[in-house]
Amino acid sequence: MNEIIPVNLATPYRIHVSGEGNSGWTAPIVQAVGGRTPIVLTNPRVAKFCLPALKKNSEFRKLNFKTLLLPDGERFKTLATVAKAYRGLVKLGADRSTPILLLGGGVLGDLGGFAAATFLRGLPFVQIGTTLVAQVDSSIGGKLGVDLPEGKNLVGVFGQPKAVVSHVPFLTTLPKRELVGGLGEVIKYGVIRDERLFEIVQKDLKKILKADGEALFEIVRRSSEIKAAVVSADEKESSLRMILNFGHTFGHALERLTGYRKFHHGEAVGVGMVIAARLSERLGFCSKAEAETVRRAVEAAGLPTTCPRFPSERWQAALEVDKKSRGGMIHFVFMKRIGEVATQPIAPKELVAHFSKIELK
Amino acid sequence: MNEIIPVNLATPYRIHVSGEGNSGWTAPIVQAVGGRTPIVLTNPRVAKFCLPALKKNSEFRKLNFKTLLLPDGERFKTLATVAKAYRGLVKLGADRSTPILLLGGGVLGDLGGFAAATFLRGLPFVQIGTTLVAQVDSSIGGKLGVDLPEGKNLVGVFGQPKAVVSHVPFLTTLPKRELVGGLGEVIKYGVIRDERLFEIVQKDLKKILKADGEALFEIVRRSSEIKAAVVSADEKESSLRMILNFGHTFGHALERLTGYRKFHHGEAVGVGMVIAARLSERLGFCSKAEAETVRRAVEAAGLPTTCPRFPSERWQAALEVDKKSRGGMIHFVFMKRIGEVATQPIAPKELVAHFSKIELK
Repeated sequence: MNEIIPVNLATPYRIHVSGEGNSGWTAPIVQAVGGRTPIVLTNPRVAKFCLPALKKNSEFRKLNFKTLLLPDGERFKTLATVAKAYRGLVKLGADRSTPILLLGGGVLGDLGGFAAATFLRGLPFVQIGTTLVAQVDSSIGGKLGVDLPEGKNLVGVFGQPKAVVSHVPFLTTLPKRELVGGLGEVIKYGVIRDERLFEIVQKDLKKILKADGEALFEIVRRSSEIKAAVVSADEKESSLRMILNFGHTFGHALERLTGYRKFHHGEAVGVGMVIAARLSERLGFCSKAEAETVRRAVEAAGLPTTCPRFPSERWQAALEVDKKSRGGMIHFVFMKRIGEVATQPIAPKELVAHFSKIELK
Repeated sequence: MNEIIPVNLATPYRIHVSGEGNSGWTAPIVQAVGGRTPIVLTNPRVAKFCLPALKKNSEFRKLNFKTLLLPDGERFKTLATVAKAYRGLVKLGADRSTPILLLGGGVLGDLGGFAAATFLRGLPFVQIGTTLVAQVDSSIGGKLGVDLPEGKNLVGVFGQPKAVVSHVPFLTTLPKRELVGGLGEVIKYGVIRDERLFEIVQKDLKKILKADGEALFEIVRRSSEIKAAVVSADEKESSLRMILNFGHTFGHALERLTGYRKFHHGEAVGVGMVIAARLSERLGFCSKAEAETVRRAVEAAGLPTTCPRFPSERWQAALEVDKKSRGGMIHFVFMKRIGEVATQPIAPKELVAHFSKIELK
């Protein structure tokens, strides 16, 4: 199984999705490296589970790559870890032509990509996502960056990789909680653009949760196509790209209110999608039945559909930090039906007022 | 006195050089701000000497700008200061549309520009240089970034401002050492591209050092034109732009070896140009007389022409960190005559061997 998806940006690149039994899956990495000595940026867990698969390939081994380990987890997605990456790159003798291979999940790809894009004003890099979230979402589109204590992803740049390589068999090594977290994003793609994908997730759910190769390949392929199409049409999130934030406005606020500890990103997005669906129902964007369909899908996937209570002022403060707030308004993504959404500016205060009236369960 | 110089990049912008008696000089700033509430990023000294001139203008006052003060000086050109800038921007409620006005010298423009270009993945910004180095060099071309303990400008991005506004009367408030430091860059433009500018600096030297408005306007105007032309032809320093590094290879190494304390940047570039000229003579790129002309110009401007001795290994290590080293080779800028240079790759070891054979005085 193998699929190549073009991303048509100013500097175009391709997403290579490969399935089991595809021994040539490292070829696009070797090609992007172009004979230089690459540095693999990764973390200890991924180095253990995924690096052996890369080393199996003799062409890749010949690159004599170096490895730079960074700490894992959202709480390390900080400027301090970026500084550590810079120091490591200096130590390993990276120069402007050194290719960086980002082998890991969403945090590694965002943070390592930011380090690569800002070291010596930009090294070439390849995104090799090893989690479902990374493969369907964060490795595509060029959003790179880190969190600040005040909020998620407040610091970053847009920077495009030389290539995205998504090797689906990596996903079989994932803890279940990570796989489920990634499903949140896949369900999101269904809601915003692809009713068929939304149905596939329901139909193949058991297979997906058992990390069945074919089922995973299909959702990675379809999700990547959607993300590639959306970012190709709107590289820097001026309008269309905002639809990718469905479920993320409250998702980010929730992560913030819980100190990035209680919920994984995909879990927060799960709750965020239920909230967004309920708000869409309340404001007349969709029917109660449609909103309920989203809640059921989130629940079936094993993602949370409710969250702790916080005072309205705290929700509002958490929402206002969000970088999608422009000139005081939040561009909120409402759903019209499964497969179609609409963006509308709304004041954070008003959003919270409506939120206080909806019921989560 | 007023001159508008276009910078023809993918997103084009203009450099507005204004002289004394030009009360409308803030107009391009007000235009770039476009009715938003800007944040002026500056440092305490510049806030004291230059902010009043901005406030004099009623159109500017109406913007109700906020001010964010950062510490001054090359030793604060660090990730820690960038982190401070981010926190300040959060506190002041900056969103994606908030324009950042970078009022200050080279350090402020580089660091503040990097903070602006990476906060929320990029805020619009205007470069308002208040030193000679900033006006003739660092505010033009979009190189933004900070130092690491291992070397200068190792971290950064390319990011273009909405406009560059160079108000020459700011330069009359400068300490003499800063003015002289800036002259190093002006002499460099003469050597690499403009024999006439090189002559003007000699001819008007007394006026320039007395901060004469007309003399300063002329060198700022000519220097800006050269820098704009070079970066327009080569935004990301793939080839032509390298000529701007004349004198900088050894200049940066010297700053590094002396811990960024003994020499101001322009002073290190002064020595670096003398070294580059002598190496050009030694390797047959120019005559002894041409090299001597550069040394005399550097000396006349009040810049150092010699530097402390360090063992060859230390020079080599300091040169190898330089980000202009690609694949192990340094692309060194040699002079052929005043007004013309040539770039040639050379191994750091060989460069140091030649360096040990030349005499500085």
